[in-house]
Amino acid sequence: MSYSYVSHLYCPKCESVYNVKDVHQLCTCGSPLLVNYHLDELRRKLHPSDLLERDSTIWRYHELLPVEEQKHVVSLGEGMTPFIPMPKLGKDMSISNLYMKDEGIIPTGTFKARGAAVGVSKAKELGIQELAMPTNGNAGAAWALYAARAGIRTTVVMPVDAPMITRNECAISGSNLYLVNGLISDAGKIVGQAVRDYELFDASTLKEPYRIEGKKTMGLEIAEQMGWKMPDVILYPTGGGVGIIGIYKALTELQTLGWVQGPLPRLVAVQAAGCAPIVKAWEEEKTESEFWANSSTIAFGINVPKALGDFLVLDAIYKTNGCAIAIDDTSILVEQQKVAVLEGSFICPEGASTFVAARRLRESGWIKEGETVVALNTGLGIKYPDTVRVEVPLLQPEECIQRGLMV
Amino acid sequence: MSYSYVSHLYCPKCESVYNVKDVHQLCTCGSPLLVNYHLDELRRKLHPSDLLERDSTIWRYHELLPVEEQKHVVSLGEGMTPFIPMPKLGKDMSISNLYMKDEGIIPTGTFKARGAAVGVSKAKELGIQELAMPTNGNAGAAWALYAARAGIRTTVVMPVDAPMITRNECAISGSNLYLVNGLISDAGKIVGQAVRDYELFDASTLKEPYRIEGKKTMGLEIAEQMGWKMPDVILYPTGGGVGIIGIYKALTELQTLGWVQGPLPRLVAVQAAGCAPIVKAWEEEKTESEFWANSSTIAFGINVPKALGDFLVLDAIYKTNGCAIAIDDTSILVEQQKVAVLEGSFICPEGASTFVAARRLRESGWIKEGETVVALNTGLGIKYPDTVRVEVPLLQPEECIQRGLMV
Repeated sequence: MSYSYVSHLYCPKCESVYNVKDVHQLCTCGSPLLVNYHLDELRRKLHPSDLLERDSTIWRYHELLPVEEQKHVVSLGEGMTPFIPMPKLGKDMSISNLYMKDEGIIPTGTFKARGAAVGVSKAKELGIQELAMPTNGNAGAAWALYAARAGIRTTVVMPVDAPMITRNECAISGSNLYLVNGLISDAGKIVGQAVRDYELFDASTLKEPYRIEGKKTMGLEIAEQMGWKMPDVILYPTGGGVGIIGIYKALTELQTLGWVQGPLPRLVAVQAAGCAPIVKAWEEEKTESEFWANSSTIAFGINVPKALGDFLVLDAIYKTNGCAIAIDDTSILVEQQKVAVLEGSFICPEGASTFVAARRLRESGWIKEGETVVALNTGLGIKYPDTVRVEVPLLQPEECIQRGLMV
Repeated sequence: MSYSYVSHLYCPKCESVYNVKDVHQLCTCGSPLLVNYHLDELRRKLHPSDLLERDSTIWRYHELLPVEEQKHVVSLGEGMTPFIPMPKLGKDMSISNLYMKDEGIIPTGTFKARGAAVGVSKAKELGIQELAMPTNGNAGAAWALYAARAGIRTTVVMPVDAPMITRNECAISGSNLYLVNGLISDAGKIVGQAVRDYELFDASTLKEPYRIEGKKTMGLEIAEQMGWKMPDVILYPTGGGVGIIGIYKALTELQTLGWVQGPLPRLVAVQAAGCAPIVKAWEEEKTESEFWANSSTIAFGINVPKALGDFLVLDAIYKTNGCAIAIDDTSILVEQQKVAVLEGSFICPEGASTFVAARRLRESGWIKEGETVVALNTGLGIKYPDTVRVEVPLLQPEECIQRGLMV
């Protein structure tokens, strides 16, 4: 049996086909490329029970990943992140079956590790020696560290306002790191020029085909962790949108394999009110988004004014009868604290936005009584220390704790 | 079959025995208490293959944990952290079989989550409503968050110099947090007084018997991840020492169960040169350590001048023919960067100290050619952002990356 059942690359816009053995970036038509697998053959050869004794990493699904030889796998043990019931928070928002898929519990502390693990592994398999990318912080950190493990050099450009901790992660990996006095779109232009000037591999979001395959494993894991059943709703914080595209791709592949039955979960793209191009497009029933000028949000990872894969995100929403919803920063911070106080998890602002969205959609009746709802937390709260306001008394060594009546 | 095979509590110093159904802190003789299990009975009823289909959390070992009813388990999906080969770093230090057990990939980002998960679960089972503890940061963060999930109130006191991020974690959980203008020993005195004044449960290191049981799962996982074989050497960054005590306890329990064979791995207690009471005691062949005055190290988690369980740490070292070694801060920072550049993992200074120790012990011949060596990284590097020096060029949006000849 082959390690991977990868077949070929194809363009979802113009339907061109490409060989998976060659290095590719975008389609000649400008669209991102997607990966196809020999699913009919795999359907006969692999069964869910075959996974039981495998490692609890994303590589347990190696047949559904594009790396053809196991020796090229670059792994830090990523995947099978916790799938946690949130009973007290669920009660607080009248959702009796609320779960969190916690992507903070993964190397580099965010879901970006999945894309980096698969993207870097495939880059290694293809013989790439140097890659470049713009980032809002977390993706750059993940790719820089995984590439270091692979022995691939990296050039990373991030906005000067990106979370400070992600700078440290890039720097300590030995990456060539640059800051830009602007947005991720400005970083992208600088990377584009460097790619042309120095013949680097462009690892920008969706400009290489394999990051989606890594993100896809979130969908595979949710299905497996639910016993190959599907929830009614999955909420995802949406910037570049690769996660939601990946989850949609995973679930359709599992349908083809016959591992899950029934309708797909309704996928919800959650955006920040200060950067909501997908929400606007969905409300206007469009198939592509427009550039969101002067975008701003504390949820830095979803500050993406125009995503290259916007049409794929919108397609996933329309095909699953999902929706898109924008959340203000103040509500995000309130919810972030509520999750910590009620459920003991310090999640990132992007993750907190999905819980606010669940709350709103339950209030409006879009989420119905008794439905099973999965919210994706995409990273650790500790990567964004400035979102927490701490006012704490300072004692001298001889002092005692004096409690008032209120405690 | 029972969920837990816990039998009773016992004192390793005076051999007193206590009922596991009651709330206990230290033995009346002042020693920490340890937990005993019905291992002979369990040996007949449970086999390693029974674990294969269980969740990849510490609770897969529930028979060997003290929580008697599953409904009291407070979990955020902790455990089965990555066990990663480190081939390039190993080659750099002439250790051909070097592995890292990466305790950064766990809720709250450090191995403290294990102790908190089991300690808080057992506290919930015993009906405890409020606990208090001193901390160097990470333990307080973990206990505050797990206790929040359990609905247990917390009072946490930490040095004003403890990592800032751990303050955020305590604060967002709703804990009653206090800083002290001093060391963890000063925090401990304040907690002791508060415990007496307000009748709180004292969750200080080893003052309750269950944290060790959580830490023990690191030893269980290493054995399982190695296919129920044992490495030759395990290196552990040692402050309070609960981890090394726990790993030793785990491996002896596995021996009794017949799940592992042969001699135990040599356990190495790694300390910082600026706080090395265990190393000093080991060098002087003593069974207890002395208070280390004016302790100081960037590896904040192992800045513990006198550990309550020092005699148990030293016993574990002596019984396994291990050793104790002190590492200077400068070498720690160099190694931290080397791990990131060569292996793609941004580990904490405490973790980096174990790799320096491995390097030194290989140089001295204490670690022999071909031996299998496991280094414990106890937490995420991103919890200590100040250990990384970042100097990075700032570009304006229209600028290009200009490469010199050296790249």
